[in-house]
Parts: sequence; structure tokens; C-alpha cells
Amino acid sequence: MVTFIDNSPGIADVQGFLVAGAGCDIRNKNTDRLDTAIILSTTPAVAAGVFTTNDIKAAPVRLCQARLAAGLPMRGIIANSGNANACTGEQGRLDADRMVALAEQLCGAPAGSFFVGSTGRIGDLLPMAKVEKGVAEAAARLAATEAESRRAAEAILTSDTRPKTATARFTWQGKTVSVSGIAKGAGMIEPGMATMLAFVATDAGLGRELLQSCLRKANGASFNTITVDGDMSTNDTVIVLANGASGVTVTEADAPLLALFQEALDKVTFALADKIVGDGEKITKVVTVKIQGARTVADAETIARAIGNSLLVKSSWYGEDPNWGRLMDAAGYARVGIIEDRISIRYNDIPALVDGRPIPENKPAWKQEVKARRFTITMTLGLGAADYTLLATDLSEAYVNFNKSE
Amino acid sequence: MVTFIDNSPGIADVQGFLVAGAGCDIRNKNTDRLDTAIILSTTPAVAAGVFTTNDIKAAPVRLCQARLAAGLPMRGIIANSGNANACTGEQGRLDADRMVALAEQLCGAPAGSFFVGSTGRIGDLLPMAKVEKGVAEAAARLAATEAESRRAAEAILTSDTRPKTATARFTWQGKTVSVSGIAKGAGMIEPGMATMLAFVATDAGLGRELLQSCLRKANGASFNTITVDGDMSTNDTVIVLANGASGVTVTEADAPLLALFQEALDKVTFALADKIVGDGEKITKVVTVKIQGARTVADAETIARAIGNSLLVKSSWYGEDPNWGRLMDAAGYARVGIIEDRISIRYNDIPALVDGRPIPENKPAWKQEVKARRFTITMTLGLGAADYTLLATDLSEAYVNFNKSE
Repeated sequence: MVTFIDNSPGIADVQGFLVAGAGCDIRNKNTDRLDTAIILSTTPAVAAGVFTTNDIKAAPVRLCQARLAAGLPMRGIIANSGNANACTGEQGRLDADRMVALAEQLCGAPAGSFFVGSTGRIGDLLPMAKVEKGVAEAAARLAATEAESRRAAEAILTSDTRPKTATARFTWQGKTVSVSGIAKGAGMIEPGMATMLAFVATDAGLGRELLQSCLRKANGASFNTITVDGDMSTNDTVIVLANGASGVTVTEADAPLLALFQEALDKVTFALADKIVGDGEKITKVVTVKIQGARTVADAETIARAIGNSLLVKSSWYGEDPNWGRLMDAAGYARVGIIEDRISIRYNDIPALVDGRPIPENKPAWKQEVKARRFTITMTLGLGAADYTLLATDLSEAYVNFNKSE
Repeated sequence: MVTFIDNSPGIADVQGFLVAGAGCDIRNKNTDRLDTAIILSTTPAVAAGVFTTNDIKAAPVRLCQARLAAGLPMRGIIANSGNANACTGEQGRLDADRMVALAEQLCGAPAGSFFVGSTGRIGDLLPMAKVEKGVAEAAARLAATEAESRRAAEAILTSDTRPKTATARFTWQGKTVSVSGIAKGAGMIEPGMATMLAFVATDAGLGRELLQSCLRKANGASFNTITVDGDMSTNDTVIVLANGASGVTVTEADAPLLALFQEALDKVTFALADKIVGDGEKITKVVTVKIQGARTVADAETIARAIGNSLLVKSSWYGEDPNWGRLMDAAGYARVGIIEDRISIRYNDIPALVDGRPIPENKPAWKQEVKARRFTITMTLGLGAADYTLLATDLSEAYVNFNKSE
């Protein structure tokens, strides 16, 4: 059985990991805000990662991808907020190299054993003198304490309003296995994957390919199913480090153990993804968009994203106006070949449309459902057996105001 | 030479057409607002049309497509605002049939010779008793006067703030040929084509296939190159009626004449499309997004639309913050395979990025450019010779407020 701990302390929940958060004023605002984090495995760890599929990838993303491909044992992650180190050219690449080299040196880790994640404004060079101070401070603070663990979760935030942590645990042959993650989100959130950093640590032991496969599965059902504003970032990064410190080794041969590990990883990544949506920039609603009865999962996903990213749909959610005509319009311009007379729509359990016929007498009931902060829209297409579920948000006037400059 | 008349009287500029606008309170608000229009050719006309590619097509769109496919001579168009007659099932189809039948009867036109266009809220049945009064009033008012012509242009508007009319004229062998159109836009504006109705009349004579081909060309460079909110409607309709009343017959054999006609049609459709963007719901900016040096036109269009529909880009335009990092991000998630080091970006004539290198010293200059209501962003990809230009708008807080309920 997998136990889930919401808003857990984070990385320090996992055996054999040290963690720290520091502040070096990367934003140049003379505040004590935390902006630099280190996660360190005390022993070599196996790594897996998934990254933005944006053509324009930030320097840290390219560095992580290269190191993941090299397949060496890894030791840690250095991360900063306040500056994405994206669209920063050759200097950006040198700065990313310098960040990992410094973190490795200060942590006594071999060259090539650190990943790096950056998040913040695109197009500005990192203030490296400050960053170097931040890395040094973080390295000096490294500890397995709840306090440092929470500081690290805070240090990676940008426009997020709260830290995002989750831990899942199970026991295997008397040994406790933990999976714990921290994440940041808020804006530029659209999968493939969302604009986000998420770092997950586990004391399970796994082979590289198996860990990557578990992460792909977990990611497909979590970070890749959310949208805030439809803008996919240049910096999206999810990294898992597995150091085996629990003494439990997960293999494909042991199906029950593998299932437990996958469940723990799924629970952590889904919780972090859900927190990212729930803390989307200036949102007031989290809407679960379930598309059912499509010909293919890809069709269902295309429709879910058309709905979840429609300005008119999102504006009507914000206004608590359950305008199902806009859902139909968006589903139609997804152009996967839907047929009006077969479509049914429910707000939670209240039917608004059945086989293309409106049920106006239910309107008072469904208008009530959309007043909640969270509700579910189920659209059944009647074309096949494939489903897709997307977590989406509304669009508020405050989002536009918040993002009109940065 | 083609003469262009902006904000012209409209349909009455064309020989052999009568026109009228009437009000029958389709919106059920007890106002005198005009909401019903008729355009009538006094003699049989050749017709061409292009329609939304949304899977969910309103009943009027399906009726028009069937009549266009039948290829019979046509006499007119009956149009209403305030109700889209979309997602209205079998009753919606019957109502559309009834609208054209009544208009045909009252105008003394043969059965099957009218098109119908509807625009407004999706999912409500038309108030047919009112609509019938509106059609009767419009039929009784039909005239070739500027006053009625302007009333028709007004009657098709929804959230538009002003009527949209344009006329182009040329002389051929002593005879004057006119092309004149009216349009409505405002919200749910994204090509394929924009949410809109546009009706164009001409007294040139043309064969059906040639007229359709001229319209396709004109449409590809006008209504299909605009976006306000990325939401493609269920009702988009552009219809051209050509009645030959000028005595000039355009054929493929006469290339100079065909070029003149195409130019006139292009000028009218582009002007109407430009007016739709310029009157987009609660917009404050019209931005021309030019993508140059792509491998294919489709790639260039994909990038232009990713930029033109990005919430973060649109919000930054609204805030007059020339955040080129967000342009890069959106171009990257279009995922056509762009290469960062080859990309250059200009705000009007001011370079912000050259071959991937930022030009920060130009920032004060380019910040100035984006303060204007209209400006141009040129992104050069350095990958090929294909270009695409999109007319896009910003996103304001007022748009969200305006669309939060309807």
C-alpha cells in the first residue's frame, strides 16, 4: 500500500539526500527572497528526465539532455529562479556549465554529475557573480532537515503563490521506500510538458531505462495533462534521481514491487501537477475536462486542449457562465471529425446536452455546479472508446493585467 | 486602375442590387436595434462561397453549402444577428429553411435561390415569429439607396462597434464594374476562416468556377489571415454574388480584365478583414506578424498563429511591453524546427534580435514602436524562402470581462 503525504517536507523525506535553499538576489531587487536550490544524493544515483519539446530550449535544458544521454551516475541538481537562462546564446551555455561545475566542486561531486534547472524571464543573461554566491551559500547549508527541504521548494518558485511538495511511501520486505518531489509552475503552463521545474528524489534503486520508463508513464498522466495558458515554456524540466539508499531495488522481474513504485511516483507527480494548475497565475477555477468516446486518445486530447485553451471558454468559466455552445465550438474547431448529434455534455453529473439536444430545464442545476472552484466537464463523443482528461484553468482579467509586462 | 472606397455605402454601390436592414428584436431586449438584412440581385446571379471548417457547422452554413454545391443561379441573401442558429438540431434546420423560403417568397424569387447567414449566441432556437416579421419588414424596405445599404451593414453586427463596408471599382471599355462588401466580426475570430459573415456583391459577370476561384484567392489573403482570440466559429460565411449588371463579363481568357477584377475583390475582402481585426472585441492593438524565411508557407503560418494566439504574447502587447522572449517561446512551441541562432526579430524597423543575439541597446527604440495602436513584428527564421503574414490583436482585461458571460 502506498501512503501519500500532501505538502510534505519534500526532498529530505528521502534517505541519502541532502538539500538546501539560498538567496542571492538574482532578480536584482534587494530582497532576501530565496532563488537558489541544491539537491544532492550522498551516493551516485540513477537519473531519468523529461524536458520541454519546444524548439527553443534553454541552455540548462540542453545541458541536462546531454548529461542524461551520457548515462553516467548522477549526484545532484542545482536550480535557480528569477532568470530562465533561455535565448542567451553562447554565454548562456557557458553560464549553465559554470553553475554545474561550481556546484559539483563545492559538493565534492565528480565533474558531469549535476543537472541544472533555471526558470524566470527569457532573454537576460544570468548575473553570474550573484549566482556563484548563491550556489556557495546553498552548498554550505546542505542538510537532511525539513527546514532546508522547504527552503529548496521555495527557492525554485517564480509567480507561484505557494511551494509545491508531495511524498509517497511504501514498505517492502520491512524496508521503507520514499518518493518525494518539489515543483514550480504558475505561468507559461501547457504540456509537452508544462512550464515548470519538478525534481523528484527516491531512495529506491532502479536501472536507468526502467526509471526513465516509469517517469514517462508518470509524466504522461500528470505534467503532460495540464494547461493554464497554453504557452509551452523553453525550460520545462522534470528530473528523478534514484539512489537506492532504501536498500530496495526495483526491477521489471518483480511486478508487484514495480507496481508499488510506479504508483508512488504517479501519486507524487500527479499531486505536483495538480498543485501547479491549482496555483496557476491569477486563476479562480480548476476545471477537469474529460473527453470520452473518441476514436483515438490523440483525438480526445486535441479536443480537450482546444476546450482548455479557448479564450472564450476560459472567460466563461471565470464568469461562472456554463456556456456549452462555446465548448461545442471549440470541440468543432479541433477538427477531428465530431458529429453534433452524438455529443453529450455534463457539468459534474448534470446533463446539459444529450445526443446533441440541449436540456434547458437542467440549466439552473448546472449553473450551480460551475460556481465551485473545481468542477468537471464530461463531453461524450459517441465515436469510439478512447478517453483523455485535461486539468485546465479559467482566464481572469487579473491574468492579463499580471502578464502585460514583466 | 482599381479605385477603392473605404467605409462606402456598401451593397447599393453595385448595379442591379437592392438591399435593406430591419429590426425585429431577435435579442428579446425591446430595442429598435437592427438585426435582419436582405441583399437581393434583381436578376439571377452567379454565387461563390467559403465557410467555416469547424466540425460543428450551424444550420445556415449547411444550407448555404448545399445550395452552393447545387450550382443554381442565386438571387439573394437573408441574414440575421443576435442568434447563430448553431447547435439547434433538427428545429434549427427547419428554421433556416423557413427563413430562406419566406425571403424568396416575399422577394418574388424562385425557391432555392437565397442563402442565409446567422450570427450570435450558439445553442438557442431562433424566435421564429419575430424573425418572420423581420424578414417581411426587410423585404418591404428593399431599395438601392445608401440609407438601406447602411442599415443592412448595421443589421448583421453583433459585438462589433461599427459597420464594416468597402467598395472597389474599375472601368472596362467604358463600363463601370463595382465590387462591394459588408462584414461583421468582433469575437470568435480565427481563420479557417474568422468568425464572421461577409457578403460581397458585384455587377461583373463571371462563371461559377471562376468566381469561386477568385474568392478562394481573395479569402486566403484576407479573412484567413486574421485572428482576435483564436476561436474559430461555427457560422463563418463569405458569399459573393455576381449578377453581370455592369455588362462586363470576366473570363479567364481575358487576363488583364481578370486581374482587375481579382484586384478589386482582393481590396474589398482585405479591407473588410482588416476592419474586423481593428474592431476586435476590446482590443487596443493591431499587430502585423510577419514570419519570413521559413521552409514552407505552412511552417510560417503555424509560427505566426502560435505567436498571434499566445496569451502571454497578447498580454504583453496590451501592456506595451515588447517581450521578445515570449515571441521566441511561442515560435518554439510551434515545433516546426526553428534554430535559435538564425532567428532575427524586428519591431517595425528596429532590430531586437539578430541571428539569435539580443540587441539590448535598441530597447528604448523598440519600446517606443509598440506604443502605437498598430505596429509590425518581423521574425526572420533563416531556413528558407517562405513567408506568412497574420493580422493579430492584443488581449485586454476588458476582453475577459466582456466574455465572462453572454
